[in-house]
Amino acid sequence: MKARVIITLKSGVLDPQGKAIEGALSSLGFDGVHSARQGKVIDLELTATEPDAAREEVERMCEALLANTVVERYHIDLNP
Amino acid sequence: MKARVIITLKSGVLDPQGKAIEGALSSLGFDGVHSARQGKVIDLELTATEPDAAREEVERMCEALLANTVVERYHIDLNP
Repeated sequence: MKARVIITLKSGVLDPQGKAIEGALSSLGFDGVHSARQGKVIDLELTATEPDAAREEVERMCEALLANTVVERYHIDLNP
Repeated sequence: MKARVIITLKSGVLDPQGKAIEGALSSLGFDGVHSARQGKVIDLELTATEPDAAREEVERMCEALLANTVVERYHIDLNP
């Protein structure tokens, strides 16, 4: 089973990479951008075949390693 | 309108960050991971309100700045 984890900064947390993207887009002439925020995506291939077990395992991975839950939130999409 | 751009390495491109995640997960006891690949997610808030125009603008941003299309592919999700 495949899992996609999307990790984004919580709102209110300063995002220098996002600000850099905003500035670069603006300097390239893209004026229609209010804001940009950058996050991470992690694609996992799992041996687990049962969705509930897979989601529970990926949640434990996020809490233990993948996300810093003080400043980041994560979202898990499973793709059997 | 909001747009989420997901940028991932093309298959076959070496992904040291993904390999590091695989190793770290394994050393933490998560044995059920075949592979891990890391990419980027960029959340944009756009002034454009028309979906086709917004998608076309974000595609131009990807080609010009956000993605390195030699080694990366991008996927755009619009959220009006």
